[in-house]
Amino acid sequence: MYLERINGPADVKELSVPELKDLGAEIRSVLLKKLSEHGGHIGPNLGMVEATVALHYVFDSPDDKIVYDVSHQSYAHKILTGRKAAFLDPAGYDDVSGYSDPEESEHDFFNIGHTSTAVSLACGLAKARDLKGTHENVIAVLGDGSLSGGEALEGLDNAAEQGTNLIVILNDNQMSIAENHGGIYRNLAGLRATQGAAPCNLFRAMGLDYLYVDAGNDVEALVAAFRQVKDTDHPIVVHINTLKGKGYAPAEQDKEPWHWGYPFELETGRCRIDFGPAPDYHDITADCLLRAMKEDPTVVGITAGTPAVMGFTADKRAQAGRQFVDVGICEEHAVALASGIAKGGGRPVWGVYSSFVQRTYDQLSQDLCINRNPACILVFLGSLMGLNDVTHLGFFDIPLISNIPNMVYLAPTCREEYEAMLAWGIRQNQHPVAIRVPGGEVLESGEAAETDYSDLNKYKVVARGSRVAILGLGAFLGLGCEVAAELKERLGIEATLINPRFITGLDEALLAGLRKDHDLVITLEDGVLDGGFGEKIARYYGPTAMRVLNYGAKKEFVDRYDLNELLRANRLSKEQICEDVAGLLG
Amino acid sequence: MYLERINGPADVKELSVPELKDLGAEIRSVLLKKLSEHGGHIGPNLGMVEATVALHYVFDSPDDKIVYDVSHQSYAHKILTGRKAAFLDPAGYDDVSGYSDPEESEHDFFNIGHTSTAVSLACGLAKARDLKGTHENVIAVLGDGSLSGGEALEGLDNAAEQGTNLIVILNDNQMSIAENHGGIYRNLAGLRATQGAAPCNLFRAMGLDYLYVDAGNDVEALVAAFRQVKDTDHPIVVHINTLKGKGYAPAEQDKEPWHWGYPFELETGRCRIDFGPAPDYHDITADCLLRAMKEDPTVVGITAGTPAVMGFTADKRAQAGRQFVDVGICEEHAVALASGIAKGGGRPVWGVYSSFVQRTYDQLSQDLCINRNPACILVFLGSLMGLNDVTHLGFFDIPLISNIPNMVYLAPTCREEYEAMLAWGIRQNQHPVAIRVPGGEVLESGEAAETDYSDLNKYKVVARGSRVAILGLGAFLGLGCEVAAELKERLGIEATLINPRFITGLDEALLAGLRKDHDLVITLEDGVLDGGFGEKIARYYGPTAMRVLNYGAKKEFVDRYDLNELLRANRLSKEQICEDVAGLLG
Repeated sequence: MYLERINGPADVKELSVPELKDLGAEIRSVLLKKLSEHGGHIGPNLGMVEATVALHYVFDSPDDKIVYDVSHQSYAHKILTGRKAAFLDPAGYDDVSGYSDPEESEHDFFNIGHTSTAVSLACGLAKARDLKGTHENVIAVLGDGSLSGGEALEGLDNAAEQGTNLIVILNDNQMSIAENHGGIYRNLAGLRATQGAAPCNLFRAMGLDYLYVDAGNDVEALVAAFRQVKDTDHPIVVHINTLKGKGYAPAEQDKEPWHWGYPFELETGRCRIDFGPAPDYHDITADCLLRAMKEDPTVVGITAGTPAVMGFTADKRAQAGRQFVDVGICEEHAVALASGIAKGGGRPVWGVYSSFVQRTYDQLSQDLCINRNPACILVFLGSLMGLNDVTHLGFFDIPLISNIPNMVYLAPTCREEYEAMLAWGIRQNQHPVAIRVPGGEVLESGEAAETDYSDLNKYKVVARGSRVAILGLGAFLGLGCEVAAELKERLGIEATLINPRFITGLDEALLAGLRKDHDLVITLEDGVLDGGFGEKIARYYGPTAMRVLNYGAKKEFVDRYDLNELLRANRLSKEQICEDVAGLLG
Repeated sequence: MYLERINGPADVKELSVPELKDLGAEIRSVLLKKLSEHGGHIGPNLGMVEATVALHYVFDSPDDKIVYDVSHQSYAHKILTGRKAAFLDPAGYDDVSGYSDPEESEHDFFNIGHTSTAVSLACGLAKARDLKGTHENVIAVLGDGSLSGGEALEGLDNAAEQGTNLIVILNDNQMSIAENHGGIYRNLAGLRATQGAAPCNLFRAMGLDYLYVDAGNDVEALVAAFRQVKDTDHPIVVHINTLKGKGYAPAEQDKEPWHWGYPFELETGRCRIDFGPAPDYHDITADCLLRAMKEDPTVVGITAGTPAVMGFTADKRAQAGRQFVDVGICEEHAVALASGIAKGGGRPVWGVYSSFVQRTYDQLSQDLCINRNPACILVFLGSLMGLNDVTHLGFFDIPLISNIPNMVYLAPTCREEYEAMLAWGIRQNQHPVAIRVPGGEVLESGEAAETDYSDLNKYKVVARGSRVAILGLGAFLGLGCEVAAELKERLGIEATLINPRFITGLDEALLAGLRKDHDLVITLEDGVLDGGFGEKIARYYGPTAMRVLNYGAKKEFVDRYDLNELLRANRLSKEQICEDVAGLLG
């Protein structure tokens, strides 16, 4: 095994080009074994094996600096840069993250998990190099799916103007997470069809030099191309035509579900985890939307490259026809598009992960909320119980969205309430509405929820008590219930339990009324405390004698956290909260 | 005068094409008179006169829908769509805003003041049209300066895929606010040089049809081109070559200062307002940065198309050489670039208006703060005393920036403190640092400020008193001073006055200490309350007996507000605050 000898890029350079092919095959088989046992990004990494080997053969990392866009295609890079143990030894699988990480290695320059950023970040490394007067190569590795993101296009435009050494490897595997969407992909197809010779060339039109490599999984061709551009004195795009999922038949054939996956049986491709028949909010959403689309031809679902978040598998996309739009990875366009559709009398619904809605603050504010257009936005995994990679945290959406005027941000607590709020969000035509799809398992209350939320900021009293009132927002109403039971059992307090439902405003009448017979208000939110819901309650009661305890997450970036540890560290358990109440009310 | 007869687009259609030329000349002279007396966007509007006349001659607004990017080039459109009185009669000058506004007219579809959004918004109108089955034209008018913004490029890419009628008028006046930057502008130059025939064409590479009009200020040529594309069944870019400032010699010759201006003498071009020799924070910033650049060749100023905000006039840009980078209008790239430069060992400083920093939440979070790179960001006009158009409000930056982990957001109160914080922000290499440049006039304390802010979240006690403590953040320390004096005079209270300096964290030791001999803490912030600084103080004291009063702006979009009225409505005067304190402390 060549891999045994590889402890860093210098060892790669000891091999001959034919030996590199064998090394690539070894890496692919190591990747497949780990992925099948551990899960992770499958398709992107299998397609990048040869290019990664060639990069480390030709360039001199870390002096030459390689920046991976999204960085979910950096597994082979990790194997070649001193981290192979985390791929070979099951006990070490979790010793590396699924993304590049400067704390892991000097060969990684940034923590990157959102798309379309690598060219701009690499421009920065190149500019610093030019200011310091050194001469290393700076390389950005960009997937074709990332190319539709505005930041990537801004970066390419500026790389051209910057004018010095910058090598953009465009890893064109003809896929985003799902299929690509956008006019630029026709140009990529034309370039592939002409072996890069088509005179109309997006990259040249942006002022960049260009080189095409058709055999993007042939290490020899890649080595030759990279040698050709090494130490170039100007920016150049190396467009490599690769196969997503290369070397694993199921992933080659059915690319979308094999972009990322749970552990699977290597022989059959069958998922090793049985999720059973329990519904999830993705499927629930697709079902609701498909029903709404049938009733109203102007209802339109929108995704920015992640159709699965709304449960829109390929067959459901086909059912929806022109009532479902995948704009590719460009969240900003998605919001403006939704605003325009709403203005034009349509009923747009954009579903997005909490982590990616972050890309649209200005569009939410300017394109949507200033214009008060009644688009509906579904924020998924806005929760401590969501994704736990530092680049994909889902608990910053409340400060982001809820402090924008005119926005109505709703926090359903269960399936029934979610479906009712979604139906209202689509139907109403007064407000930009966002709905924070609950994190965690789908809870069913068994009760019909209210169907009309147009009387804004009316909180719902679930149980009326005294002394202590608990505001359990969204998915944390359940925690509120537990706390109420604990308070009763341990302190003999019959607490009031409230489902606020509205994140974006205060029910001042209800809050004022609590002052009569309550001494303490507790807020529970499944998100960061800073800038969030609870602080508004604290501000409201600031001038009064009411005590307020806000519970939620501390403002910090946490990486691959253990949920229970995080909850405990933030005192988010019924026992801890009850202890705090006992301490306070003495 | 033809204009007398024009009360709406239908009246434009009554004219002959030669008469349209005269109408254009009349509009230009009306614009110049108003602009010289009132100020506003000069260059962009003068260049768009003929195209606007031609648009309303050929298309049928409001059935056909015209969406103006940034919309600061929509003055002629306003004149032709029933709002000419606001241009002809000085008493009515302020009856219209400087941007498109659906509340003013059915011919305006969105409030738009940030760049690069029109294509995406127009895609939405077109999609709604297609879902409803109607057949009007949708037209987006986009300046070449807006083209560098990611949202515009995302929109063009998606317009191509959408595939139905959408007409993008690219108003190419060869300028952004300052000169253009980016590789795509070379392509525009190539297209102009070849009368649109160059085979490498950015728009065709994005999948769009394309038509070039060289005589972009010739109404006849424009009418012919618009007739050619009217009712097209697919998306097309009409690239018109116009002259910014057309018809007014000073504005034609010196385009940057004539992009927007205060009232001026029509004969000489001289500004009618004398700002005197008082320094402003723009000039102060440029001077500080130029000094820092001389001392350290890795200090680099960055602007996203607004060099004036950092005081970098053309001559200062020349002085800075490669140590000043204008990336064009693309704020996202600016942040990622800064992060990359900092990672590479350079010392980047990005200056940006508060309203536009909104475009970068995800870049601040992902590209910068997760990576803890020590870039320095200067946020200008983050204040109620800043721009007062609804699309340019500057008081939402605290919730946006201060709730991101790892960010150090500083609030200097005066010139000395600003200069000291800027010097530290450049010099330090531990944190992403943002500085909220104070709004309003430049105050000089006459005292040297501390030079080191690395001991995070240490508030400064300006005066030690008892019972009431006032936390006056940034520019509102002055208000805090006034309130303290008023409390003493009217209530005999010697209040404690504190300059928090750090927006992003609490000085818990100091806050805890206040509990000994204070009953009330007042927070004053020059920004929106929701998600802001004061709420964190309220949360901190929530479980205690300390009363807290938070002052700042209510969460709402306000348009062309009167500052004093806004302050009064938010009880931001010493008298009102003293009254509240008296009521509370009995």
